[in-house]
Amino acid sequence: MTDDERPQPWSVADSTQIVRDRWIDLRADTCVDGRGRTIAPYYVLNPADWITVLAVDEAGQAIVVEEYRHGAGTVAIGLVGGAVDEGESPPDAALRELREETGYVAGEIIDLGSTWANWGNHTNRSHHFLALGCRRFAAQSLDDSELITVHLEPVDSLGDRLEQSYHLLTWMKAMPRLHATGAD
Amino acid sequence: MTDDERPQPWSVADSTQIVRDRWIDLRADTCVDGRGRTIAPYYVLNPADWITVLAVDEAGQAIVVEEYRHGAGTVAIGLVGGAVDEGESPPDAALRELREETGYVAGEIIDLGSTWANWGNHTNRSHHFLALGCRRFAAQSLDDSELITVHLEPVDSLGDRLEQSYHLLTWMKAMPRLHATGAD
Repeated sequence: MTDDERPQPWSVADSTQIVRDRWIDLRADTCVDGRGRTIAPYYVLNPADWITVLAVDEAGQAIVVEEYRHGAGTVAIGLVGGAVDEGESPPDAALRELREETGYVAGEIIDLGSTWANWGNHTNRSHHFLALGCRRFAAQSLDDSELITVHLEPVDSLGDRLEQSYHLLTWMKAMPRLHATGAD
Repeated sequence: MTDDERPQPWSVADSTQIVRDRWIDLRADTCVDGRGRTIAPYYVLNPADWITVLAVDEAGQAIVVEEYRHGAGTVAIGLVGGAVDEGESPPDAALRELREETGYVAGEIIDLGSTWANWGNHTNRSHHFLALGCRRFAAQSLDDSELITVHLEPVDSLGDRLEQSYHLLTWMKAMPRLHATGAD
């Protein structure tokens, strides 16, 4: 190839659903690239969009959640996060997950933008939020399988303790905005 | 529950392999949480670790790759990235992917740390690198299905154009280090 030959979108000649239920949607595509070559199987995951929220209370402390993360096999703190429900907007999902996981409500929700979650084989986007002026107003509202404890942590040093990609990205995107807000 | 009750790791009572080949490893676990409740099916993806590299040439330009991203269905620029091979170290994987995707070699590879790729249901980590002093020494060495064009972009404004979570995170982690290096 030469650098003059630009990449073209693939077409999908065939697609087989591998598994689909309320937890996962995985298919195997048979793709054809711009040169007519077949690429198969090409696995695609089709999750709902995700949200991650750096939540800060009225005293300027970060509100983090400690829970078991089964992929990693570890109990650790992280930011509030979850999936956007059908028909729900990403900011509404952020406020809902904050309320359910922590019992806090936000005074203001700031949209930090979105990124493709993992564009090679995931179809969904990851939305990043900063929630300001959060205050506790109720108990948590957890699903049966959730056990989450809520902690307050200094927000500036939190980046050193965040171990998950989307959480750290959200914190890094939020920090300039948080400091700009604090200086107002 | 009360905040005194800390989350405990789950145990795995049973596990069923859904699909496993050279491209994907997906299983469905039957988990039991610290209170004895069963959580099933809990889907787990077990990929190899991933690397992402912000590569900068000797003139200070970022080396980016434009290719088709089938999950997103879009042709776009991004950072060099890929999977760590069996028995390979993450920095070696970063240097190999840089060489294969762009034909560049790095003068120095800087480890920016790693994060869990997506700890809820992925077992793997994402490793972030900054490659400095890169120079072109050969043609690309691509797999049959790869069609990648290489571009040079201003590194400081690249963050505005990166659309994938791991790429933007790597760029954000690299920028303070890059500027510290430049000031030496």
